[in-house]
Amino acid sequence: MIAQGSDQVQTGQLRVALAQINPKVGDFAGNTRLILEYAGKAAQTGAHAVVFPEMILTGYPVEDLALRATFRSASQSALTELAHQLIDCGDVVSVVGYLDESEGRQPQNAVAFIHHGQVVASYKKHHLPNYGVFDEFRNFIPGTESLVVRIHGIDVGIAICEDIWQEAGLVPTLAARRPGLIIVPNGSPYERNKDDLRAALVQKRAREFDAPLLYVNMTGGQDDLVFDGDSIAVTSGGEIIARAPQFFDGLMVVDVDCASATSDPDVIISQECIGAYQKITHGIASRLSTEAEIWEALVVGLRDYVHKNGFPSVILGLSGGIDSAVTAAIAADAIGAEKVFGVAMPSKYSSQHSLSDAADSAERIGLNYRVLGIQPMVDAFLTHVGLKGLAEENVQARIRGTTLMGLSNQEGHLVLATGNKSELAVGYSTMYGDAVGGFAPIKDLLKSEVWRIARWRNKVALERGETPPIPENSISKEPSAELRPDQKDSDSLPEYEILDQILTIYIENDGGLQGLLDAGFDPDLAIRVIKMVDGAEYKRRQYPPGTKISLRAFGKDRRLPITSGWKEVRLE
Amino acid sequence: MIAQGSDQVQTGQLRVALAQINPKVGDFAGNTRLILEYAGKAAQTGAHAVVFPEMILTGYPVEDLALRATFRSASQSALTELAHQLIDCGDVVSVVGYLDESEGRQPQNAVAFIHHGQVVASYKKHHLPNYGVFDEFRNFIPGTESLVVRIHGIDVGIAICEDIWQEAGLVPTLAARRPGLIIVPNGSPYERNKDDLRAALVQKRAREFDAPLLYVNMTGGQDDLVFDGDSIAVTSGGEIIARAPQFFDGLMVVDVDCASATSDPDVIISQECIGAYQKITHGIASRLSTEAEIWEALVVGLRDYVHKNGFPSVILGLSGGIDSAVTAAIAADAIGAEKVFGVAMPSKYSSQHSLSDAADSAERIGLNYRVLGIQPMVDAFLTHVGLKGLAEENVQARIRGTTLMGLSNQEGHLVLATGNKSELAVGYSTMYGDAVGGFAPIKDLLKSEVWRIARWRNKVALERGETPPIPENSISKEPSAELRPDQKDSDSLPEYEILDQILTIYIENDGGLQGLLDAGFDPDLAIRVIKMVDGAEYKRRQYPPGTKISLRAFGKDRRLPITSGWKEVRLE
Repeated sequence: MIAQGSDQVQTGQLRVALAQINPKVGDFAGNTRLILEYAGKAAQTGAHAVVFPEMILTGYPVEDLALRATFRSASQSALTELAHQLIDCGDVVSVVGYLDESEGRQPQNAVAFIHHGQVVASYKKHHLPNYGVFDEFRNFIPGTESLVVRIHGIDVGIAICEDIWQEAGLVPTLAARRPGLIIVPNGSPYERNKDDLRAALVQKRAREFDAPLLYVNMTGGQDDLVFDGDSIAVTSGGEIIARAPQFFDGLMVVDVDCASATSDPDVIISQECIGAYQKITHGIASRLSTEAEIWEALVVGLRDYVHKNGFPSVILGLSGGIDSAVTAAIAADAIGAEKVFGVAMPSKYSSQHSLSDAADSAERIGLNYRVLGIQPMVDAFLTHVGLKGLAEENVQARIRGTTLMGLSNQEGHLVLATGNKSELAVGYSTMYGDAVGGFAPIKDLLKSEVWRIARWRNKVALERGETPPIPENSISKEPSAELRPDQKDSDSLPEYEILDQILTIYIENDGGLQGLLDAGFDPDLAIRVIKMVDGAEYKRRQYPPGTKISLRAFGKDRRLPITSGWKEVRLE
Repeated sequence: MIAQGSDQVQTGQLRVALAQINPKVGDFAGNTRLILEYAGKAAQTGAHAVVFPEMILTGYPVEDLALRATFRSASQSALTELAHQLIDCGDVVSVVGYLDESEGRQPQNAVAFIHHGQVVASYKKHHLPNYGVFDEFRNFIPGTESLVVRIHGIDVGIAICEDIWQEAGLVPTLAARRPGLIIVPNGSPYERNKDDLRAALVQKRAREFDAPLLYVNMTGGQDDLVFDGDSIAVTSGGEIIARAPQFFDGLMVVDVDCASATSDPDVIISQECIGAYQKITHGIASRLSTEAEIWEALVVGLRDYVHKNGFPSVILGLSGGIDSAVTAAIAADAIGAEKVFGVAMPSKYSSQHSLSDAADSAERIGLNYRVLGIQPMVDAFLTHVGLKGLAEENVQARIRGTTLMGLSNQEGHLVLATGNKSELAVGYSTMYGDAVGGFAPIKDLLKSEVWRIARWRNKVALERGETPPIPENSISKEPSAELRPDQKDSDSLPEYEILDQILTIYIENDGGLQGLLDAGFDPDLAIRVIKMVDGAEYKRRQYPPGTKISLRAFGKDRRLPITSGWKEVRLE
């Protein structure tokens, strides 16, 4: 790196605090308190700057709230007020994401540099993701200017999240300005194994910028998204020097060596380089296993849906099967077993092991358990409405749903739906029956993943000397909806191991029939599964939200027509 | 208009057929048949060109199907095959919307010019709407080239839908090329009074281009959207010379006078101008009244949801109230009374007039009617689950929902939810109760609009000498959910006339609290309603789709977080 107009590179040190924290969408007062708390902590560590995640002041994503003038105005006022309150943090520079407006009063995803009670500079995100779960091109207009701010002689360049994922645009523009340090606030939702992609990208970009890069991501759940933190600091050579634990709130403080006065900054906050000081020891948190990562995501997603929406407790049906047993265990890890209410609702088709496994699940977890037989209600429907066959099967599921909703109305619990992604994909669920709920914790987990994390969670319990929360019998027995005598899931579905491979190609990879044929699946089976998936779109539309963990979850991540004559074809 | 390289303007005539037709998303075979049928009709009228709506070959909107390689490939193959089959139409040029791919194999919203069995030119849409119900920036990449094609000496320029709504970009680019005729294929969904905006825009653009403009829109329903046709032909001076009836499939043939050889075309299909011939007489269909327009939209939306999804019939609960009475009348107009099944499901709180008004509604319409008392099921729930208060109220609604779903499972009907927008806005509906259904015809109608179209529909019946389908008593009586003794909607809600004004400002205009205060509403009332609306977001997420008629419908038109700490504020 050659400083402009000089053959000699000056270097300086900077202590930067990365605030990996959990905001709540729209809660300006709460988010302000959180920012002040962490800015104060940062000041105590002697940090020169503290960097917060993307749109920390508004929470993220705000969706169409961005389109409302009152909301934009509140964000701008909250920023001014926050800046004023940050005076107490002394000389530290706070880098705070918020919602701003363009000159034409259009919404912009922005980051402010705040110093001595004033907003001294503001950057607007250039690249607005508009794929997958993101609608940013709908909600914001892009920024067009890069920003470099000099802090203690170091020229700090900024990019927001998607800005560094795009090769063209901001990255080369900013690189040409030769900043000495890059900071990147993010609102990057968790996806299975995404942390590996992130680290590789951050390393690559640091090398391209030839400058250290600090990547700050938020934590916590927001409807169907979970943010896993995973903040990262890398050197100009791309070496990871610090990495925060996943799904964990905290302040990661790093000392970085940066070339100074490398650029022509837009704003100078402070000219003088910091003299050499004793660096702190950095930590690199070890990565979670895939199972642990998924479990944490589901726990955090449910925990925040419950807490941020003010529910005192949750209720779910316990069938003795794997899905409800795993959901109950997640709920207990999320909010405590004493706030989890399980209800076994046997009908005449329920086997004895269903009831005993449900009771076992409740006892292992220590949740609140009751048994409410549904046969009197079923009989009333069969007699007075005259339902038979599939209608009789479904009415049982709907009476269970109505029972849970009744208890929810009466006792104030959030109802959890326990369906998994495999069932939801092929429509193997009853609308207004087992699909009832305000939140569906495992809706993005394939059945085989449900088994996998169940075994993992039990193993962890044993390692900790605790009772495994999921009954072994719920894991090992053959899945059945028990809505008619001797029913098995395999009566109408392929074995889950095969089904889940097909679903991964068809849904997660959007492979179409051709993708399944290329992978060697039998054409008749492939077409049968595709028909089931396509035909169940209307059911998914009315399904509750639940935590996204895959590359492509149902919901806003995958937007397909219900009315459709499309039949998958082989490519020519 | 000055022709290039000449002081003398040559003019020519062109006969163009505007095919205002109803495709089905993804049904390549069916849409191909439809296009061939209308191209054939166009050829019979002696038309020189036939213009089809936007993406007529794939249907519209295709949503994330655009992201699938198999789907794009099928569209391209279907276009080639269609071009081949169009040979039978002789010399007529067919202008056909389809889904294409860029050189980088990214999806593009395209229009092909087909002549003598070959695709001779293709235009890619420049402006991709990504607001409201549109996700085109998600699903397509924009085109960058304008296109002018010479047909019988007339230089025909093309724009697709949104292209002409934007001042910058394609409009000035294309205008600078001085085309002699502009054709505009559209997939423009119906919104209340949108036809007035369209006509004004089309007239303005024609004057700007100084060329006649032909605007072709599709018809029919696709999930929550309805397309109203409303195809328009204007002269270079902006005079409307022909306008197709709304919500009506057909071929509108126009003879237009165009300056010839005005541009430097990209493709020449035919050089020679047509000699003067006898023009046909154009018709300008009269506009429907607002009530008629809304009624037609709801009828077409429901009709196509039923037919395109292959349902034999519909079923709904008849409460004797206005919402179910209007929904039943719409259903009868859409698919015939003999395919409409109404069920009265009285509980002990149902008044006598509820049952008699329900029966009256059924008799007036001539639909299939039955009475199924729900008290035995209610009693079973109250006894065995022990529900009281709000839980008892809601269980009645859920038993009705379960009953309808049971009959649907048994008899194959599509269940219709009968809720209106006012109820849905403030959460005055029971999830899995009255919210049950595959389609919700009046979900985008405010309560006051429900009354308004009910009165209108009855008046039309009287004018035709038919029985008014909606009982006068259902229109005039005070609304009640009848879930507890002497309950009235006005116990928990403001009068609907006031409520609907508030909802229009808060939802349709996104006005925030400030908008309500500016309109003079009492702050306490405004805040109370806003709280109800914001707090019911989770209920709306699980509500069935229904026809959009307003500027901002619930669903993909209005995307807000469920988890939110945002409270509306006054602007500073």
